[in-house]
Amino acid sequence: MLKVGIVGGTGYTGVELLRLLAQHPGVELTAITSRTEAGMPVARLFPNLRGHVDLAFSEPSIEVLGACDVVFFATPHGVAMKQAQELLDRGVRIIDLAADFRLTDIAVFEQWYGMPHGATTILAESVYGLPEMNRAAIKAARVVGNPGCYPTAVQLGFLPLLKAGLVDPAHLVADAKSGVSGAGRKAEVHALFSEAAESFRAYGVSGHRHLPEISQGLARMTSGKVGLTFVPHLLPMIRGIHATLYARLTKDAGDLQKLFEETYASEPFVDVMPAGSLPETRSVKGANTCRIAVYRPQGGDTVVVLSVIDNLVKGAAGQAVQNMNIMFDLPETAGLTQIALLP
Amino acid sequence: MLKVGIVGGTGYTGVELLRLLAQHPGVELTAITSRTEAGMPVARLFPNLRGHVDLAFSEPSIEVLGACDVVFFATPHGVAMKQAQELLDRGVRIIDLAADFRLTDIAVFEQWYGMPHGATTILAESVYGLPEMNRAAIKAARVVGNPGCYPTAVQLGFLPLLKAGLVDPAHLVADAKSGVSGAGRKAEVHALFSEAAESFRAYGVSGHRHLPEISQGLARMTSGKVGLTFVPHLLPMIRGIHATLYARLTKDAGDLQKLFEETYASEPFVDVMPAGSLPETRSVKGANTCRIAVYRPQGGDTVVVLSVIDNLVKGAAGQAVQNMNIMFDLPETAGLTQIALLP
Amino acid sequence: MLKVGIVGGTGYTGVELLRLLAQHPGVELTAITSRTEAGMPVARLFPNLRGHVDLAFSEPSIEVLGACDVVFFATPHGVAMKQAQELLDRGVRIIDLAADFRLTDIAVFEQWYGMPHGATTILAESVYGLPEMNRAAIKAARVVGNPGCYPTAVQLGFLPLLKAGLVDPAHLVADAKSGVSGAGRKAEVHALFSEAAESFRAYGVSGHRHLPEISQGLARMTSGKVGLTFVPHLLPMIRGIHATLYARLTKDAGDLQKLFEETYASEPFVDVMPAGSLPETRSVKGANTCRIAVYRPQGGDTVVVLSVIDNLVKGAAGQAVQNMNIMFDLPETAGLTQIALLP
Amino acid sequence: MLKVGIVGGTGYTGVELLRLLAQHPGVELTAITSRTEAGMPVARLFPNLRGHVDLAFSEPSIEVLGACDVVFFATPHGVAMKQAQELLDRGVRIIDLAADFRLTDIAVFEQWYGMPHGATTILAESVYGLPEMNRAAIKAARVVGNPGCYPTAVQLGFLPLLKAGLVDPAHLVADAKSGVSGAGRKAEVHALFSEAAESFRAYGVSGHRHLPEISQGLARMTSGKVGLTFVPHLLPMIRGIHATLYARLTKDAGDLQKLFEETYASEPFVDVMPAGSLPETRSVKGANTCRIAVYRPQGGDTVVVLSVIDNLVKGAAGQAVQNMNIMFDLPETAGLTQIALLP
Repeated sequence: MLKVGIVGGTGYTGVELLRLLAQHPGVELTAITSRTEAGMPVARLFPNLRGHVDLAFSEPSIEVLGACDVVFFATPHGVAMKQAQELLDRGVRIIDLAADFRLTDIAVFEQWYGMPHGATTILAESVYGLPEMNRAAIKAARVVGNPGCYPTAVQLGFLPLLKAGLVDPAHLVADAKSGVSGAGRKAEVHALFSEAAESFRAYGVSGHRHLPEISQGLARMTSGKVGLTFVPHLLPMIRGIHATLYARLTKDAGDLQKLFEETYASEPFVDVMPAGSLPETRSVKGANTCRIAVYRPQGGDTVVVLSVIDNLVKGAAGQAVQNMNIMFDLPETAGLTQIALLP
Repeated sequence: MLKVGIVGGTGYTGVELLRLLAQHPGVELTAITSRTEAGMPVARLFPNLRGHVDLAFSEPSIEVLGACDVVFFATPHGVAMKQAQELLDRGVRIIDLAADFRLTDIAVFEQWYGMPHGATTILAESVYGLPEMNRAAIKAARVVGNPGCYPTAVQLGFLPLLKAGLVDPAHLVADAKSGVSGAGRKAEVHALFSEAAESFRAYGVSGHRHLPEISQGLARMTSGKVGLTFVPHLLPMIRGIHATLYARLTKDAGDLQKLFEETYASEPFVDVMPAGSLPETRSVKGANTCRIAVYRPQGGDTVVVLSVIDNLVKGAAGQAVQNMNIMFDLPETAGLTQIALLP
Repeated sequence: MLKVGIVGGTGYTGVELLRLLAQHPGVELTAITSRTEAGMPVARLFPNLRGHVDLAFSEPSIEVLGACDVVFFATPHGVAMKQAQELLDRGVRIIDLAADFRLTDIAVFEQWYGMPHGATTILAESVYGLPEMNRAAIKAARVVGNPGCYPTAVQLGFLPLLKAGLVDPAHLVADAKSGVSGAGRKAEVHALFSEAAESFRAYGVSGHRHLPEISQGLARMTSGKVGLTFVPHLLPMIRGIHATLYARLTKDAGDLQKLFEETYASEPFVDVMPAGSLPETRSVKGANTCRIAVYRPQGGDTVVVLSVIDNLVKGAAGQAVQNMNIMFDLPETAGLTQIALLP
Repeated sequence: MLKVGIVGGTGYTGVELLRLLAQHPGVELTAITSRTEAGMPVARLFPNLRGHVDLAFSEPSIEVLGACDVVFFATPHGVAMKQAQELLDRGVRIIDLAADFRLTDIAVFEQWYGMPHGATTILAESVYGLPEMNRAAIKAARVVGNPGCYPTAVQLGFLPLLKAGLVDPAHLVADAKSGVSGAGRKAEVHALFSEAAESFRAYGVSGHRHLPEISQGLARMTSGKVGLTFVPHLLPMIRGIHATLYARLTKDAGDLQKLFEETYASEPFVDVMPAGSLPETRSVKGANTCRIAVYRPQGGDTVVVLSVIDNLVKGAAGQAVQNMNIMFDLPETAGLTQIALLP
């Protein structure tokens, strides 16, 4: 049994990690830390865990965390980079759900996150944890930077097109929509029920932190120069991301449906739906699946890809567990076979 | 492996049965029937099941269903009573999720459901499937009438008080609230999103079909005459029932918290929360749990009980699986250990 | 034209006052103050007001406010009591939407609000602003304590029964449900979308600040001793309160429908719906109306009253404007004829 | 006072017309017809109208409707075309909220709506009712085809760019999102609360009826050939459309903000928000306003326009009333000054 620790478990990615790991057949939950809630039983904060998780939050302790096989950081940006070395020194492998190990270009990180990067050496060896792109590297990694939620949905949607060199990479559009849980469990006015319900709006149109992350990922799929217009929106619902992607064909596309199906034929968590399907976010609610459909409306030169995930699962905690499974030679689907809750 | 059939699987209790049974360790899904959707893969109607359920809906067939160990009826009221004898003759046990085998008084059934009861002999041997009241009888039953959703939440909340004889059974109030999925997957104006969202109202104040079912159940818990005022309301959400129960103490109550905890100490699916807790419906979303809290506001003579379930799980499909487990000597929690999805 | 000032206009009652007053035919909006947002145009914070309200938030100033005919306090509890005397000295009349002038018993105020009352003399002359109870006194008042949202819905529902002496006042039950906007526009975790959506729960079961306010109001309607069990719940929607009220008949009730209709026959903002109606909160969304239905289920001795309001209108800003109209001899419905938004 | 009739008032555009017209200062509501609900008071079906509209639904009658100055058709596609001539013969002017008089190309109409056009002569004289494009023609029109909801939001967003000839008209993208009320008040499974809540999906990607309508409108703004990729999505909320528009600049754009502001400077119902704004659908909930923001992310060659309306107001009933005001020389804002309901 893997010994697993979680740093910073009071947010939504934390409770989601607990939900998944508590029933993972190869895992023993060893510690979940929180400075602010130390001493409080986890199940008091998250009553859905009553009867499933007996742990209490504890103060972060290198002794306890250092005895783990793997530690997940479900913390704000900038925390993992400070604590990583100490854990690595004790042989602990690390999966960071924040942005510390996502962007390889330090200047880009510092520009978008407004802080110096405190662990550039570790960053250099870290691996971007999108299994569908990086499985082999993840297997060997000591440190994995778990992708952001939007980047997961957008990259998986564009990947077949860019790898096949079918579209103009310089003029991509990603119109993305996320449920409010993507904003985390922080007390902020804009995320109040009375602000977010029965309304819809874009945000971050001038620039969103996931833009450089997506651009970096797309650039790895093509030799062309990537230009991306990324517009995120806030959906009046809790869970789910829907990315609607637009690209212009530059050559004969052939059978796009077949291209997508073949690209993901052996992927356990990417489901290319039958032609004409309309993926619903609820079809992946609570599940680690990305469902994709591809269209060429009116037979024109614009390709439309629809890509849905649960932002807290394939977009965060579930993908982190998937990465753990890969890193430790567990079956990749271990602990990740939940069926989405519908309705 | 139990061979399991489902009759009428196109509604919400049907898809929920499939979600639970597809991952039940002791079950083999044999058939799911639907006249209207025969031939269509189940996962096309319910895409959350893609990759988990390969069955297609089939025409009801006594050959196929008769070869099952157990058949669930997820059909409208009045269907199970017509088909039950034929299945019983072949040794199949039956769990009906509709109302055909809930009310023992035929006149009461006919008054509230507006149809003659077509299987009164079977009704006479059938067992009301509330495990916390009837576990032994369920174990031996050939036919189980699975309780309604409101009746489950209300009965479990009143049970400790009535069994202990602490309250006036003639003046009970159950103010109950249900998510819209309780109305089923029928195309009806009142259940449209634009009708049910951002609004709240009572319904069935003059009389609701669950009133006689609850009254029958409460009467079995007390020797006194039961008088119940039951007011159901429609919540602008999908899943969840919250019953707020009011009863008047007729004698010294002692420690109500202790009474509830002891009553349910060995129940796997009833969670008496710590004193002062406020059960949220989301804490049981997707789980087969009933969470309960008990209060005596301002130390007065009115007891308030808060009882929450997921109407589709403990209020329908989950309880049906629990009954199946009991009937076939499987571990009672088999296939029912899902953690509620929060947030 | 009345000169009107608003103190503390950055919350939901503030924006609602602005929505109503901006189109009130007898009013000139003079000032809206906010220390934190001074200088910011009101319509930048609340873009629905673009083109309708040109004011910017200003620092509170006795010169400006003192020149008004009436000042509304849309501030936290405890603010109005500190500033009232100064305004009264300049002849300004005051309507407080917080609790400073609701409870006549100072000890009760201090117990439930945890602060000393700083203006007991003013409190002594102030009038509780429920027009259906106190119209004449409101007309003459210099200071009106605008009722709480729950108290409005509950008092209007019980009033006909208590005034007629038909029910046992010692055992009343008010099961009340409110949309999340009742919690205000404060950044608090429990009011986040991801916490409040798709869930339902009770709160304040042990004791809620509106309990003494309601009890005080009910006591004025009866000579008997009032005992009230009040359980508020949080609805996953923005606006609306639904109070479901239970009382036990102590004498022959006669025609309850007629009693309610006659009681409110001349009230412009209380709508007794036809027998058998089920008031929806959406039927009053944005309107200053309380809609009521009365039932006697199964002809028993329990009366059920259903009472709905928009918590921000008849439960706050609308009722405050109604009080202003009464105080200044304007038509009582002036500025309050909006039709509820449905769907 | 204009005498106004409404044909087919039982849907959401019907109740919205009633909400607006009931308080319109220049209008007398004469008749509202419905075959299915004839005899029923309007306010029984739509209780928000209690106290505001005393009419009952009546059987359609040429005597009654023929005595009106203007008749609104809030009926399914294909009804107005059958009844128009008879009304025109009596001097009645017509505003159709369905699609009968939107598409000038009969073949296109018949292809997308699957029915022959039964009134091609009237179609030839009819005017497309988008005031910001066609005000003069609307003024003189006997028959107005009121635009669809998506077409209104999309056309108003693209108009300044196309009129100025700044973008490539052959590669436009409109990613549009609508609340569920756009689907009408029909009992259909896909619009059930439990199907549409807490989920998000695209629809009509292969082709939606609003595509030819939008294309026709855009073609009138440019001499270039229009190519549009239009992807509508279903939002889990009742009211509101958000169109996110993408176009590629083909020449120096200059100051886009200024272009938009100048284009709409004298329009009473188009609000170009300050640079950097993020229009929320709730800022127009219940109001006849279209709010727009324009961006050029990262200074690239892609322009992004955000355009929001209330689909039932500026996208349907409100725009119809605006058209009526123009046709009858009433102030264009008469009856349309409601402030959006926020929160």
